[in-house]
Amino acid sequence: MDELALTVGQYNLVYNAFSFTIAVMGAATLFFWLNRGQVTIDYRPAVTISGLVTAIALYHYFRIFESWDAAYTIADGTLKATGVPFNDAYRYVDWLLTVPLLLIELILVMRLSSSETWSKGTRLGLLAAVMIILGYPGEVSADPATRWLWWGLAMIPFVWIVYELFVGLSAAIKKQPENVRGLVDTARWLTVLSWAFYPVVFIFPMIGLTGGVAETAVQVGYTIADIVAKAVFGVVIYMIAVRKSEAEMGAGQPAAAAAK
Amino acid sequence: MDELALTVGQYNLVYNAFSFTIAVMGAATLFFWLNRGQVTIDYRPAVTISGLVTAIALYHYFRIFESWDAAYTIADGTLKATGVPFNDAYRYVDWLLTVPLLLIELILVMRLSSSETWSKGTRLGLLAAVMIILGYPGEVSADPATRWLWWGLAMIPFVWIVYELFVGLSAAIKKQPENVRGLVDTARWLTVLSWAFYPVVFIFPMIGLTGGVAETAVQVGYTIADIVAKAVFGVVIYMIAVRKSEAEMGAGQPAAAAAK
Repeated sequence: MDELALTVGQYNLVYNAFSFTIAVMGAATLFFWLNRGQVTIDYRPAVTISGLVTAIALYHYFRIFESWDAAYTIADGTLKATGVPFNDAYRYVDWLLTVPLLLIELILVMRLSSSETWSKGTRLGLLAAVMIILGYPGEVSADPATRWLWWGLAMIPFVWIVYELFVGLSAAIKKQPENVRGLVDTARWLTVLSWAFYPVVFIFPMIGLTGGVAETAVQVGYTIADIVAKAVFGVVIYMIAVRKSEAEMGAGQPAAAAAK
Repeated sequence: MDELALTVGQYNLVYNAFSFTIAVMGAATLFFWLNRGQVTIDYRPAVTISGLVTAIALYHYFRIFESWDAAYTIADGTLKATGVPFNDAYRYVDWLLTVPLLLIELILVMRLSSSETWSKGTRLGLLAAVMIILGYPGEVSADPATRWLWWGLAMIPFVWIVYELFVGLSAAIKKQPENVRGLVDTARWLTVLSWAFYPVVFIFPMIGLTGGVAETAVQVGYTIADIVAKAVFGVVIYMIAVRKSEAEMGAGQPAAAAAK
Protein backbone atom coordinates (compact mmCIF):
# COMPACT_ATOMS: atom_id res chain seq x y z
CA MET A 1 0.00 0.00 0.00
CA ASP A 2 1.25 3.41 -0.94
CA GLU A 3 0.41 5.57 2.07
CA LEU A 4 1.41 8.87 0.53
CA ALA A 5 -1.21 8.24 -2.15
CA LEU A 6 -3.97 8.25 0.48
CA THR A 7 -5.74 11.59 0.97
CA VAL A 8 -7.20 12.88 4.24
CA GLY A 9 -10.71 12.43 2.77
CA GLN A 10 -10.02 8.79 1.83
CA TYR A 11 -8.48 8.10 5.24
CA ASN A 12 -11.55 9.58 6.98
CA LEU A 13 -13.97 7.63 4.79
CA VAL A 14 -12.30 4.33 5.73
CA TYR A 15 -12.09 5.43 9.39
CA ASN A 16 -15.82 6.22 9.48
CA ALA A 17 -16.69 3.01 7.61
CA PHE A 18 -14.83 0.97 10.27
CA SER A 19 -16.56 2.82 13.12
CA PHE A 20 -19.93 2.30 11.38
CA THR A 21 -19.23 -1.43 11.13
CA ILE A 22 -18.43 -1.63 14.86
CA ALA A 23 -21.89 -0.11 15.53
CA VAL A 24 -23.61 -2.43 13.01
CA MET A 25 -22.00 -5.62 14.33
CA GLY A 26 -22.65 -4.67 17.97
CA ALA A 27 -26.30 -3.80 17.26
CA ALA A 28 -26.81 -6.97 15.19
CA THR A 29 -25.33 -9.16 17.94
CA LEU A 30 -27.65 -7.69 20.58
CA PHE A 31 -30.63 -7.96 18.20
CA PHE A 32 -30.04 -11.68 17.64
CA TRP A 33 -29.39 -12.55 21.27
CA LEU A 34 -32.22 -10.43 22.72
CA ASN A 35 -34.68 -11.89 20.19
CA ARG A 36 -33.76 -15.56 20.69
CA GLY A 37 -36.98 -15.99 22.70
CA GLN A 38 -39.06 -14.97 19.66
CA VAL A 39 -38.36 -18.34 17.95
CA THR A 40 -39.02 -21.89 19.10
CA ILE A 41 -36.27 -23.90 20.75
CA ASP A 42 -35.40 -25.72 17.50
CA TYR A 43 -34.36 -22.48 15.80
CA ARG A 44 -32.48 -20.88 18.69
CA PRO A 45 -29.06 -22.35 17.77
CA ALA A 46 -29.28 -20.76 14.30
CA VAL A 47 -30.17 -17.35 15.81
CA THR A 48 -27.51 -17.68 18.54
CA ILE A 49 -24.85 -18.46 15.92
CA SER A 50 -25.97 -15.45 13.83
CA GLY A 51 -25.12 -13.36 16.90
CA LEU A 52 -21.81 -15.18 17.41
CA VAL A 53 -20.74 -14.34 13.87
CA THR A 54 -21.48 -10.63 14.33
CA ALA A 55 -19.86 -10.67 17.81
CA ILE A 56 -16.64 -12.12 16.34
CA ALA A 57 -16.77 -9.49 13.58
CA LEU A 58 -17.33 -6.77 16.22
CA TYR A 59 -14.13 -7.84 17.97
CA HIS A 60 -12.14 -7.87 14.72
CA TYR A 61 -13.49 -4.54 13.46
CA PHE A 62 -12.53 -2.97 16.76
CA ARG A 63 -8.97 -4.28 16.19
CA ILE A 64 -8.98 -3.16 12.54
CA PHE A 65 -10.21 0.31 13.56
CA GLU A 66 -7.48 0.65 16.20
CA SER A 67 -4.85 -0.55 13.71
CA TRP A 68 -6.01 1.95 11.05
CA ASP A 69 -5.98 4.73 13.66
CA ALA A 70 -2.44 3.82 14.75
CA ALA A 71 -1.06 3.60 11.19
CA TYR A 72 -1.72 7.25 10.28
CA THR A 73 -1.72 10.63 11.89
CA ILE A 74 -3.17 13.94 10.69
CA ALA A 75 -0.99 16.95 11.45
CA ASP A 76 -1.93 20.39 10.11
CA GLY A 77 -4.38 18.91 7.64
CA THR A 78 -1.84 16.50 6.14
CA LEU A 79 -1.94 12.72 6.44
CA LYS A 80 1.31 11.05 7.54
CA ALA A 81 2.20 7.38 7.99
CA THR A 82 3.34 6.71 11.56
CA GLY A 83 5.47 3.72 10.52
CA VAL A 84 3.24 1.26 12.38
CA PRO A 85 1.87 -1.02 9.62
CA PHE A 86 -1.89 -1.45 9.21
CA ASN A 87 -2.71 -5.08 10.03
CA ASP A 88 -5.06 -6.46 7.41
CA ALA A 89 -4.58 -10.05 8.63
CA TYR A 90 -7.34 -9.56 11.21
CA ARG A 91 -9.73 -10.11 8.31
CA TYR A 92 -8.42 -13.63 7.59
CA VAL A 93 -8.54 -14.59 11.25
CA ASP A 94 -12.14 -13.34 11.33
CA TRP A 95 -13.18 -15.21 8.19
CA LEU A 96 -11.55 -18.46 9.37
CA LEU A 97 -14.05 -18.46 12.23
CA THR A 98 -17.11 -16.71 10.78
CA VAL A 99 -17.35 -18.14 7.25
CA PRO A 100 -17.83 -21.78 8.38
CA LEU A 101 -20.32 -20.53 11.02
CA LEU A 102 -22.37 -18.67 8.37
CA LEU A 103 -22.84 -21.87 6.39
CA ILE A 104 -23.75 -23.74 9.59
CA GLU A 105 -26.41 -21.07 10.35
CA LEU A 106 -28.04 -21.75 7.00
CA ILE A 107 -27.98 -25.53 7.53
CA LEU A 108 -29.38 -25.19 11.08
CA VAL A 109 -32.30 -22.95 10.11
CA MET A 110 -33.31 -25.44 7.40
CA ARG A 111 -33.80 -28.01 10.20
CA LEU A 112 -32.76 -31.09 8.23
CA SER A 113 -32.44 -34.54 9.86
CA SER A 114 -29.61 -34.80 12.43
CA SER A 115 -27.46 -36.90 10.13
CA GLU A 116 -27.92 -34.52 7.19
CA THR A 117 -27.25 -31.50 9.42
CA TRP A 118 -24.04 -33.14 10.57
CA SER A 119 -22.81 -34.26 7.14
CA LYS A 120 -23.69 -31.04 5.29
CA GLY A 121 -22.53 -28.84 8.17
CA THR A 122 -19.11 -30.49 8.43
CA ARG A 123 -18.58 -30.60 4.67
CA LEU A 124 -19.49 -26.94 4.07
CA GLY A 125 -17.70 -25.78 7.25
CA LEU A 126 -14.46 -27.56 6.30
CA LEU A 127 -14.60 -26.35 2.70
CA ALA A 128 -14.99 -22.77 3.93
CA ALA A 129 -12.04 -23.09 6.34
CA VAL A 130 -9.82 -24.59 3.59
CA MET A 131 -10.84 -21.73 1.26
CA ILE A 132 -9.74 -19.08 3.77
CA ILE A 133 -6.47 -20.89 4.62
CA LEU A 134 -5.57 -21.18 0.92
CA GLY A 135 -6.22 -17.48 0.34
CA TYR A 136 -3.91 -16.27 3.10
CA PRO A 137 -0.44 -17.09 1.59
CA GLY A 138 -1.52 -15.21 -1.54
CA GLU A 139 -2.78 -12.20 0.42
CA VAL A 140 0.53 -11.69 2.25
CA SER A 141 2.60 -12.03 -0.93
CA ALA A 142 3.55 -9.11 -3.16
CA ASP A 143 4.52 -11.40 -6.07
CA PRO A 144 1.69 -11.57 -8.66
CA ALA A 145 2.49 -15.19 -9.68
CA THR A 146 2.30 -16.35 -6.05
CA ARG A 147 -0.96 -14.41 -5.57
CA TRP A 148 -2.52 -16.01 -8.67
CA LEU A 149 -1.45 -19.51 -7.56
CA TRP A 150 -3.14 -19.27 -4.12
CA TRP A 151 -6.11 -17.40 -5.54
CA GLY A 152 -6.67 -20.28 -7.98
CA LEU A 153 -6.30 -22.88 -5.23
CA ALA A 154 -8.78 -21.02 -2.95
CA MET A 155 -11.29 -20.82 -5.81
CA ILE A 156 -11.59 -24.65 -5.84
CA PRO A 157 -13.35 -24.87 -2.43
CA PHE A 158 -15.27 -21.66 -3.29
CA VAL A 159 -16.76 -23.17 -6.44
CA TRP A 160 -17.42 -26.41 -4.56
CA ILE A 161 -19.38 -24.46 -1.88
CA VAL A 162 -21.46 -22.71 -4.57
CA TYR A 163 -22.16 -26.14 -6.12
CA GLU A 164 -23.21 -27.55 -2.72
CA LEU A 165 -25.50 -24.58 -2.05
CA PHE A 166 -27.24 -24.71 -5.43
CA VAL A 167 -27.21 -28.42 -6.27
CA GLY A 168 -26.53 -30.25 -3.00
CA LEU A 169 -29.13 -28.27 -1.04
CA SER A 170 -31.81 -28.01 -3.73
CA ALA A 171 -33.70 -31.13 -2.61
CA ALA A 172 -33.67 -29.90 1.00
CA ILE A 173 -34.90 -26.43 -0.05
CA LYS A 174 -37.84 -27.95 -1.94
CA LYS A 175 -38.87 -29.61 1.34
CA GLN A 176 -38.95 -26.23 3.21
CA PRO A 177 -42.40 -24.80 4.00
CA GLU A 178 -43.71 -22.56 1.23
CA ASN A 179 -43.75 -19.38 3.34
CA VAL A 180 -39.97 -19.44 3.77
CA ARG A 181 -38.76 -20.93 0.48
CA GLY A 182 -38.24 -17.44 -1.00
CA LEU A 183 -36.26 -16.33 2.06
CA VAL A 184 -34.03 -19.44 2.01
CA ASP A 185 -33.33 -18.70 -1.62
CA THR A 186 -32.48 -15.08 -0.69
CA ALA A 187 -30.06 -16.34 1.99
CA ARG A 188 -28.36 -18.61 -0.55
CA TRP A 189 -27.98 -15.78 -3.09
CA LEU A 190 -26.78 -13.31 -0.44
CA THR A 191 -24.05 -15.80 0.43
CA VAL A 192 -22.87 -16.31 -3.14
CA LEU A 193 -23.08 -12.63 -4.18
CA SER A 194 -21.46 -11.15 -1.08
CA TRP A 195 -18.74 -13.82 -1.09
CA ALA A 196 -17.99 -13.25 -4.78
CA PHE A 197 -16.74 -9.79 -3.80
CA TYR A 198 -13.71 -11.16 -1.90
CA PRO A 199 -11.87 -12.95 -4.77
CA VAL A 200 -12.51 -9.90 -7.00
CA VAL A 201 -10.94 -7.50 -4.47
CA PHE A 202 -8.04 -9.94 -4.03
CA ILE A 203 -6.95 -9.47 -7.67
CA PHE A 204 -6.99 -5.62 -7.56
CA PRO A 205 -3.22 -5.30 -6.93
CA MET A 206 -2.49 -8.03 -9.51
CA ILE A 207 -4.15 -6.01 -12.29
CA GLY A 208 -2.38 -2.77 -11.40
CA LEU A 209 -5.03 -1.17 -9.17
CA THR A 210 -2.99 0.45 -6.40
CA GLY A 211 -2.78 3.78 -4.62
CA GLY A 212 -5.26 5.67 -2.47
CA VAL A 213 -8.38 5.00 -4.52
CA ALA A 214 -7.71 1.24 -4.71
CA GLU A 215 -6.88 0.99 -0.99
CA THR A 216 -10.06 2.90 -0.09
CA ALA A 217 -12.15 0.75 -2.46
CA VAL A 218 -10.68 -2.44 -0.94
CA GLN A 219 -11.32 -1.40 2.66
CA VAL A 220 -14.81 0.05 2.10
CA GLY A 221 -15.69 -2.85 -0.22
CA TYR A 222 -14.64 -5.55 2.28
CA THR A 223 -16.60 -3.66 4.94
CA ILE A 224 -19.82 -3.57 2.90
CA ALA A 225 -19.37 -7.25 1.95
CA ASP A 226 -18.90 -8.17 5.63
CA ILE A 227 -22.03 -6.23 6.67
CA VAL A 228 -24.12 -7.96 3.97
CA ALA A 229 -22.66 -11.44 4.50
CA LYS A 230 -22.94 -11.32 8.32
CA ALA A 231 -25.54 -8.83 9.61
CA VAL A 232 -28.01 -8.73 6.69
CA PHE A 233 -27.65 -12.51 6.17
CA GLY A 234 -28.28 -13.00 9.90
CA VAL A 235 -31.50 -10.96 9.73
CA VAL A 236 -32.72 -13.17 6.85
CA ILE A 237 -31.89 -16.29 8.92
CA TYR A 238 -33.79 -14.74 11.88
CA MET A 239 -36.84 -14.03 9.69
CA ILE A 240 -36.83 -17.63 8.39
CA ALA A 241 -36.66 -18.84 12.01
CA VAL A 242 -39.58 -16.59 13.07
CA ARG A 243 -41.81 -17.66 10.17
CA LYS A 244 -41.07 -21.36 10.63
CA SER A 245 -41.67 -21.06 14.39
CA GLU A 246 -45.05 -19.40 13.79
CA ALA A 247 -46.09 -21.94 11.17
CA GLU A 248 -45.06 -24.91 13.32
CA MET A 249 -46.83 -23.56 16.43
CA GLY A 250 -50.05 -22.83 14.54
CA ALA A 251 -51.70 -19.46 14.12
CA GLY A 252 -52.55 -17.42 17.20
CA GLN A 253 -50.16 -19.22 19.51
CA PRO A 254 -47.11 -17.17 20.45
CA ALA A 255 -43.90 -18.99 19.60
CA ALA A 256 -42.16 -18.38 22.92
CA ALA A 257 -45.10 -19.50 25.02
CA ALA A 258 -45.31 -22.76 23.10
CA ALA A 259 -41.58 -23.33 23.44
CA LYS A 260 -41.74 -23.25 27.24
CA MET B 1 -15.55 25.71 12.32
CA ASP B 2 -13.62 28.63 13.71
CA GLU B 3 -12.01 27.24 16.86
CA LEU B 4 -10.58 30.52 18.07
CA ALA B 5 -14.12 31.89 18.17
CA LEU B 6 -15.12 29.26 20.74
CA THR B 7 -14.94 30.39 24.36
CA VAL B 8 -14.04 28.18 27.33
CA GLY B 9 -17.66 28.47 28.52
CA GLN B 10 -19.05 27.33 25.16
CA TYR B 11 -16.55 24.47 24.99
CA ASN B 12 -17.58 23.28 28.46
CA LEU B 13 -21.29 23.54 27.67
CA VAL B 14 -20.91 21.25 24.64
CA TYR B 15 -18.61 18.93 26.63
CA ASN B 16 -21.20 18.58 29.40
CA ALA B 17 -24.06 18.17 26.92
CA PHE B 18 -22.21 15.22 25.33
CA SER B 19 -21.55 13.63 28.71
CA PHE B 20 -25.22 14.11 29.67
CA THR B 21 -26.28 12.38 26.43
CA ILE B 22 -24.03 9.39 27.18
CA ALA B 23 -25.86 9.03 30.53
CA VAL B 24 -29.31 9.44 28.89
CA MET B 25 -28.68 6.92 26.11
CA GLY B 26 -27.14 4.37 28.51
CA ALA B 27 -30.04 4.69 30.95
CA ALA B 28 -32.64 4.51 28.16
CA THR B 29 -31.03 1.37 26.72
CA LEU B 30 -31.10 -0.40 30.08
CA PHE B 31 -34.69 0.76 30.72
CA PHE B 32 -35.93 -0.73 27.42
CA TRP B 33 -34.08 -4.03 27.73
CA LEU B 34 -34.81 -4.57 31.43
CA ASN B 35 -38.52 -3.89 30.84
CA ARG B 36 -38.96 -6.10 27.77
CA GLY B 37 -40.78 -8.66 29.96
CA GLN B 38 -43.48 -6.08 30.80
CA VAL B 39 -44.98 -6.40 27.32
CA THR B 40 -46.34 -9.41 25.46
CA ILE B 41 -44.17 -11.26 22.97
CA ASP B 42 -45.70 -9.45 19.99
CA TYR B 43 -44.40 -6.09 21.20
CA ARG B 44 -40.94 -7.17 22.36
CA PRO B 45 -39.23 -6.57 18.99
CA ALA B 46 -40.39 -2.90 19.07
CA VAL B 47 -39.06 -2.43 22.64
CA THR B 48 -35.83 -4.31 21.85
CA ILE B 49 -35.21 -2.07 18.82
CA SER B 50 -35.90 1.07 20.94
CA GLY B 51 -32.99 -0.10 23.10
CA LEU B 52 -30.82 -0.87 20.06
CA VAL B 53 -31.29 2.70 18.79
CA THR B 54 -30.21 4.23 22.11
CA ALA B 55 -27.34 1.71 22.39
CA ILE B 56 -26.04 2.72 18.94
CA ALA B 57 -26.38 6.40 19.96
CA LEU B 58 -24.55 5.65 23.23
CA TYR B 59 -21.61 4.27 21.23
CA HIS B 60 -21.53 7.28 18.92
CA TYR B 61 -21.88 9.87 21.68
CA PHE B 62 -18.97 8.22 23.45
CA ARG B 63 -16.90 8.61 20.24
CA ILE B 64 -18.15 12.21 19.73
CA PHE B 65 -17.26 13.06 23.34
CA GLU B 66 -13.75 11.60 22.96
CA SER B 67 -13.25 13.43 19.66
CA TRP B 68 -14.38 16.78 21.17
CA ASP B 69 -12.08 16.20 24.12
CA ALA B 70 -9.12 15.45 21.80
CA ALA B 71 -9.75 18.48 19.55
CA TYR B 72 -9.24 21.16 22.24
CA THR B 73 -7.11 21.76 25.28
CA ILE B 74 -7.45 24.36 28.04
CA ALA B 75 -4.14 25.88 29.16
CA ASP B 76 -4.02 28.77 31.66
CA GLY B 77 -7.72 29.43 31.22
CA THR B 78 -7.45 29.72 27.41
CA LEU B 79 -8.95 27.31 24.89
CA LYS B 80 -6.53 26.04 22.22
CA ALA B 81 -7.11 23.78 19.22
CA THR B 82 -4.86 20.71 19.39
CA GLY B 83 -4.82 20.28 15.59
CA VAL B 84 -6.73 16.97 15.79
CA PRO B 85 -9.97 17.70 13.89
CA PHE B 86 -13.33 17.15 15.64
CA ASN B 87 -15.06 14.32 13.77
CA ASP B 88 -18.69 15.30 13.24
CA ALA B 89 -19.18 12.44 10.75
CA TYR B 90 -20.03 10.11 13.65
CA ARG B 91 -23.47 11.75 13.57
CA TYR B 92 -24.15 10.69 9.97
CA VAL B 93 -22.91 7.17 10.63
CA ASP B 94 -25.24 7.05 13.64
CA TRP B 95 -28.26 8.39 11.75
CA LEU B 96 -27.71 5.97 8.84
CA LEU B 97 -28.39 3.14 11.30
CA THR B 98 -30.77 4.66 13.83
CA VAL B 99 -33.17 6.68 11.65
CA PRO B 100 -34.43 3.64 9.67
CA LEU B 101 -34.69 1.70 12.96
CA LEU B 102 -36.83 4.46 14.54
CA LEU B 103 -39.37 4.19 11.73
CA ILE B 104 -39.31 0.39 12.02
CA GLU B 105 -40.05 0.71 15.80
CA LEU B 106 -43.17 2.71 14.99
CA ILE B 107 -44.32 0.18 12.37
CA LEU B 108 -43.66 -2.78 14.70
CA VAL B 109 -45.58 -1.33 17.66
CA MET B 110 -48.61 -0.75 15.40
CA ARG B 111 -48.66 -4.51 14.77
CA LEU B 112 -49.93 -4.47 11.20
CA SER B 113 -50.19 -7.64 9.11
CA SER B 114 -46.83 -9.27 8.23
CA SER B 115 -47.01 -8.13 4.62
CA GLU B 116 -47.88 -4.52 5.59
CA THR B 117 -45.12 -4.50 8.24
CA TRP B 118 -42.67 -5.68 5.63
CA SER B 119 -43.75 -3.28 2.85
CA LYS B 120 -44.07 -0.16 5.04
CA GLY B 121 -40.94 -1.03 7.07
CA THR B 122 -38.77 -1.46 3.97
CA ARG B 123 -40.14 1.63 2.23
CA LEU B 124 -39.72 3.96 5.23
CA GLY B 125 -36.36 2.39 6.20
CA LEU B 126 -34.94 2.84 2.70
CA LEU B 127 -36.26 6.41 2.37
CA ALA B 128 -34.61 7.29 5.69
CA ALA B 129 -31.27 5.76 4.63
CA VAL B 130 -31.37 7.62 1.28
CA MET B 131 -32.16 10.88 3.12
CA ILE B 132 -29.06 10.52 5.36
CA ILE B 133 -26.78 9.48 2.47
CA LEU B 134 -27.88 12.53 0.41
CA GLY B 135 -27.21 14.87 3.34
CA TYR B 136 -23.62 13.73 3.86
CA PRO B 137 -21.88 15.23 0.74
CA GLY B 138 -23.44 18.59 1.65
CA GLU B 139 -22.37 18.37 5.29
CA VAL B 140 -18.69 17.80 4.42
CA SER B 141 -18.64 20.63 1.86
CA ALA B 142 -17.78 24.24 2.70
CA ASP B 143 -19.27 25.57 -0.56
CA PRO B 144 -22.78 27.04 -0.02
CA ALA B 145 -24.04 26.05 -3.49
CA THR B 146 -22.99 22.41 -2.95
CA ARG B 147 -24.57 22.44 0.50
CA TRP B 148 -27.89 23.77 -0.89
CA LEU B 149 -27.90 21.17 -3.67
CA TRP B 150 -27.57 18.17 -1.31
CA TRP B 151 -29.87 19.78 1.26
CA GLY B 152 -32.54 20.05 -1.42
CA LEU B 153 -32.02 16.48 -2.59
CA ALA B 154 -32.18 15.12 1.00
CA MET B 155 -35.44 17.05 1.56
CA ILE B 156 -37.20 14.93 -1.11
CA PRO B 157 -37.10 11.68 0.93
CA PHE B 158 -37.76 13.73 4.11
CA VAL B 159 -41.02 15.15 2.71
CA TRP B 160 -41.92 11.71 1.36
CA ILE B 161 -41.46 10.21 4.87
CA VAL B 162 -43.69 12.92 6.40
CA TYR B 163 -46.30 12.14 3.72
CA GLU B 164 -46.08 8.39 4.48
CA LEU B 165 -46.43 9.04 8.23
CA PHE B 166 -49.44 11.34 7.90
CA VAL B 167 -51.25 9.99 4.85
CA GLY B 168 -49.90 6.45 4.25
CA LEU B 169 -50.30 5.42 7.90
CA SER B 170 -53.58 7.19 8.68
CA ALA B 171 -55.79 4.18 7.85
CA ALA B 172 -53.60 1.94 10.02
CA ILE B 173 -53.71 4.45 12.89
CA LYS B 174 -57.52 4.55 12.79
CA LYS B 175 -57.46 0.77 13.33
CA GLN B 176 -55.33 1.11 16.52
CA PRO B 177 -57.18 0.56 19.81
CA GLU B 178 -58.65 3.77 21.20
CA ASN B 179 -56.47 3.82 24.34
CA VAL B 180 -53.26 4.21 22.30
CA ARG B 181 -54.40 6.28 19.33
CA GLY B 182 -53.31 9.51 21.04
CA LEU B 183 -49.89 8.06 21.86
CA VAL B 184 -49.34 6.83 18.29
CA ASP B 185 -50.18 10.33 17.13
CA THR B 186 -47.65 11.75 19.64
CA ALA B 187 -44.99 9.36 18.32
CA ARG B 188 -45.69 10.52 14.78
CA TRP B 189 -45.47 14.21 15.73
CA LEU B 190 -42.32 13.67 17.82
CA THR B 191 -40.71 12.14 14.75
CA VAL B 192 -41.61 14.99 12.42
CA LEU B 193 -40.83 17.81 14.86
CA SER B 194 -37.54 16.45 16.18
CA TRP B 195 -36.41 15.53 12.67
CA ALA B 196 -37.29 19.00 11.33
CA PHE B 197 -34.52 20.36 13.53
CA TYR B 198 -31.75 18.70 11.49
CA PRO B 199 -32.31 20.42 8.08
CA VAL B 200 -32.64 23.76 9.92
CA VAL B 201 -29.28 23.33 11.68
CA PHE B 202 -27.74 22.22 8.39
CA ILE B 203 -28.36 25.66 6.81
CA PHE B 204 -26.80 27.67 9.69
CA PRO B 205 -23.39 28.08 7.96
CA MET B 206 -25.11 28.83 4.63
CA ILE B 207 -26.91 31.86 6.07
CA GLY B 208 -23.81 33.30 7.72
CA LEU B 209 -24.21 31.82 11.18
CA THR B 210 -20.65 30.85 12.11
CA GLY B 211 -18.29 31.20 15.04
CA GLY B 212 -18.53 30.00 18.61
CA VAL B 213 -22.22 30.69 19.20
CA ALA B 214 -23.29 28.90 16.01
CA GLU B 215 -21.02 25.89 16.68
CA THR B 216 -22.36 25.62 20.23
CA ALA B 217 -25.97 25.96 19.01
CA VAL B 218 -25.39 23.23 16.38
CA GLN B 219 -23.82 20.75 18.82
CA VAL B 220 -26.27 21.36 21.67
CA GLY B 221 -29.20 21.47 19.22
CA TYR B 222 -28.31 18.16 17.55
CA THR B 223 -27.88 16.67 21.02
CA ILE B 224 -31.34 17.75 22.21
CA ALA B 225 -32.90 16.57 18.92
CA ASP B 226 -31.19 13.17 19.31
CA ILE B 227 -32.45 12.79 22.89
CA VAL B 228 -36.03 13.60 21.84
CA ALA B 229 -36.00 11.53 18.64
CA LYS B 230 -34.43 8.46 20.28
CA ALA B 231 -34.92 8.25 24.06
CA VAL B 232 -38.21 10.19 24.47
CA PHE B 233 -39.63 8.60 21.30
CA GLY B 234 -38.61 5.17 22.63
CA VAL B 235 -40.46 5.79 25.91
CA VAL B 236 -43.62 6.64 23.92
CA ILE B 237 -43.21 3.41 21.91
CA TYR B 238 -42.77 1.50 25.19
CA MET B 239 -45.95 3.06 26.64
CA ILE B 240 -47.92 2.10 23.53
CA ALA B 241 -46.59 -1.45 23.84
CA VAL B 242 -47.57 -1.66 27.53
CA ARG B 243 -51.12 -0.38 26.94
CA LYS B 244 -51.72 -2.64 23.96
CA SER B 245 -50.34 -5.64 25.89
CA GLU B 246 -52.69 -4.93 28.81
CA ALA B 247 -55.70 -4.47 26.53
CA GLU B 248 -55.01 -7.65 24.58
CA MET B 249 -54.46 -9.74 27.73
CA GLY B 250 -57.68 -8.50 29.35
CA ALA B 251 -58.08 -6.09 32.24
CA GLY B 252 -56.45 -6.87 35.57
CA GLN B 253 -54.06 -9.45 34.17
CA PRO B 254 -50.43 -8.28 34.08
CA ALA B 255 -49.00 -8.66 30.61
CA ALA B 256 -45.84 -10.39 31.73
CA ALA B 257 -47.72 -13.11 33.60
CA ALA B 258 -50.00 -13.73 30.64
CA ALA B 259 -47.09 -14.00 28.23
CA LYS B 260 -45.63 -16.97 30.13
